[in-house]
Amino acid sequence: MSSLPRIVIVGAGFGGLTAARALDGLAVDLTVVDRRNFHLFQPLLYQVATAGLNPSDVAWPVRGILSRQKNARVLLGEVTGVATGSQEVLLADGRKLPYDWLILATGATHTYFGNDHWERHAPGLKRVDDATLIRRRLLLALEHAENSSDPVERRKLMSVAIVGAGPTGVELAGAIAELSRKVLVRDFRSIDPREVRVVLVEGADRVLLSFPPALSAFALSELRKKGVEVMLDTRVTGCDADGLRFGDGSHLDAATVLWAAGVAASPAARWLGVPADRAGRVQVQPDLSVAGQPQVFVIGDTAAIVQDGKQVPGVAPAAKQQGQHVARTIRAALAGKKAPGAFRYRDFGNLATIGRHSAVIDFGFVRIKGLIAWWLWGVAHVYFLIGARNRMLVATQWFFNYLSYSRAARLIVGSDPDATKPR
Amino acid sequence: MSSLPRIVIVGAGFGGLTAARALDGLAVDLTVVDRRNFHLFQPLLYQVATAGLNPSDVAWPVRGILSRQKNARVLLGEVTGVATGSQEVLLADGRKLPYDWLILATGATHTYFGNDHWERHAPGLKRVDDATLIRRRLLLALEHAENSSDPVERRKLMSVAIVGAGPTGVELAGAIAELSRKVLVRDFRSIDPREVRVVLVEGADRVLLSFPPALSAFALSELRKKGVEVMLDTRVTGCDADGLRFGDGSHLDAATVLWAAGVAASPAARWLGVPADRAGRVQVQPDLSVAGQPQVFVIGDTAAIVQDGKQVPGVAPAAKQQGQHVARTIRAALAGKKAPGAFRYRDFGNLATIGRHSAVIDFGFVRIKGLIAWWLWGVAHVYFLIGARNRMLVATQWFFNYLSYSRAARLIVGSDPDATKPR
Repeated sequence: MSSLPRIVIVGAGFGGLTAARALDGLAVDLTVVDRRNFHLFQPLLYQVATAGLNPSDVAWPVRGILSRQKNARVLLGEVTGVATGSQEVLLADGRKLPYDWLILATGATHTYFGNDHWERHAPGLKRVDDATLIRRRLLLALEHAENSSDPVERRKLMSVAIVGAGPTGVELAGAIAELSRKVLVRDFRSIDPREVRVVLVEGADRVLLSFPPALSAFALSELRKKGVEVMLDTRVTGCDADGLRFGDGSHLDAATVLWAAGVAASPAARWLGVPADRAGRVQVQPDLSVAGQPQVFVIGDTAAIVQDGKQVPGVAPAAKQQGQHVARTIRAALAGKKAPGAFRYRDFGNLATIGRHSAVIDFGFVRIKGLIAWWLWGVAHVYFLIGARNRMLVATQWFFNYLSYSRAARLIVGSDPDATKPR
Repeated sequence: MSSLPRIVIVGAGFGGLTAARALDGLAVDLTVVDRRNFHLFQPLLYQVATAGLNPSDVAWPVRGILSRQKNARVLLGEVTGVATGSQEVLLADGRKLPYDWLILATGATHTYFGNDHWERHAPGLKRVDDATLIRRRLLLALEHAENSSDPVERRKLMSVAIVGAGPTGVELAGAIAELSRKVLVRDFRSIDPREVRVVLVEGADRVLLSFPPALSAFALSELRKKGVEVMLDTRVTGCDADGLRFGDGSHLDAATVLWAAGVAASPAARWLGVPADRAGRVQVQPDLSVAGQPQVFVIGDTAAIVQDGKQVPGVAPAAKQQGQHVARTIRAALAGKKAPGAFRYRDFGNLATIGRHSAVIDFGFVRIKGLIAWWLWGVAHVYFLIGARNRMLVATQWFFNYLSYSRAARLIVGSDPDATKPR
């Protein structure tokens, strides 16, 4: 039994891993728990869904990342709760992890606003398995269309609807339009993939609501140039195997529906028995700790932090900065030094890509759009990928895709009982 | 309705694809049918199972390979039979493909010699999904071992048994031994992956039975050097979630069991209503056609061909040569020229790799073993990968693995109801 201070980090996303690495070298007994054995570089997950990248290009084993960090151990396990009284994290298999310090960095998932039965018809994009499922459905729908002789059914099979025009929805719509119009264009004989209908459905009156209106307008025109149909001010009221139903009673026939609307925090608030906001996030103290539990922290998409009257966004840089801040707080406490105090989010800019050669960046003081923004986006993403090996592989793969417009990752693997079948 | 001669090729493996490409430019209506949308480079599939490569490094969309071949179309479909009278291929969804010429290149699968219930405990390695399943089981067993405090259970979780010491079994055993001893060695805290027990079980009195005894002896000593336990003359009589039972009544506790013994041909003989040999293969005519059906050919692992008193082996080069031969036969017939006649297999050598830095090659006139054989093996495999893009990516990935001993592809994805669970 170790007598070192025990730190448990739940979640190996951007927040949790950054905290773990920032605690390197400290004389502590550090445990990182995750349900999955890999860290996921979520900003590029849509590329896996659209056959541009492999799962392992955007996901790396947590054990590998932390293998050289002596004070850390990695546990594959599903957390089901926290016993705050006895200071223990509870796992699904009955094990308990005692902690002196606890960092909950469990992220968010998509929400269907009470319509969970929509999920099987409209998968979201949060996990690697989501991405391979979406890839399979997109490609299988075209295979079925190639085999279909019924024009109505064929049209349905060749229609993709994406609900939600935030960064993920916009990225997916742009990438699917390009996949069908550029990559798959020579692959079929009976159908013309250029006729694939990509419909982006948004409840608000513009795409990329978190960006300035001028960039939203630019993104909208870029999407339309790429052949994406954008429906604004449109409320989804139903979702089934045939497509979407809207608030005005009309129906969109689409064999493939993707969900990029609505994010809900993981159940950390419930675990801790503390109040959550509407999105399920824990209202944390200025130092990211939980009220009344100064040694328990919540960071990343699971934490609700208001700064200068605005919510700190649920993006990777915010989670990483929070991980770093909590590590500093723990280091200070263990060294008997003064705590760094309140967390402050430094916003380095907001980025979204619309497809090949087009992106928007909002730096606050300056806004960039189009080709230059796209190159900045590409360089930034390759740079932030963990590890030189993956950086080079992703760069190589992109370079080939760029030159050849070919996508080797378009494999249909696994099975999917809810997949579209013809008729 | 086209009036061109209709050629149907069933199976997009080495044989079927080679035949399709060799028919390029001909005025025919060519259809390639496969259950999967990709061609699989099976010789490297064991690298996917052992987390060295990604699925898409060894599998490429058939549509992409044939997209520039004007006379070919690709169909995703499951063949269920052949109506030889009306000359139609029957698909599971009820469609019928009329043919003037038919090439069956449907390969082989593993067989459990009447013990099909062993499959869930001892997956074989034929498909991409097999490889990701094996990878998941190998990695999950170690995760469970890391979490287990029961020494007996931990020992079982850290034991891998491989049944069959042909090239696939030997490759798997070597790769798993290296994965645990070199790659994963720093990843765990409670267990030492170097203690992973890799047991290779073979019914015959030597490994690599298809090679000369001297190379078998070399492979055996190399395997043992890598830490693989090799059990020769050992008959498997039972297989369950706890491991293997042997002919002498003893039991081997192993949470992970892999099946590399026994290959059975696909049901082409049944489809055609012709006799099959013990392994299910169709006894073809010297020109690879089926007796009494001169316009139907069977090639690759599904065909039984005896040459110089020996069975032509079920390897990629043989299938490719057969595909080429059948294409030449059809070309000659359509041009009204003399048929090329009997097929003759040209054996360019037999290759098996035992792991990093060690392989055996039997060229017939000369035998090579060890480091040089390994380099020849690597160069040959990268060379034969279809397409420059994959060649370069695979080479890059190998180079990094070689330098760093790290394997990024060690992701546990998907779910597996039959996977080992602790207790």
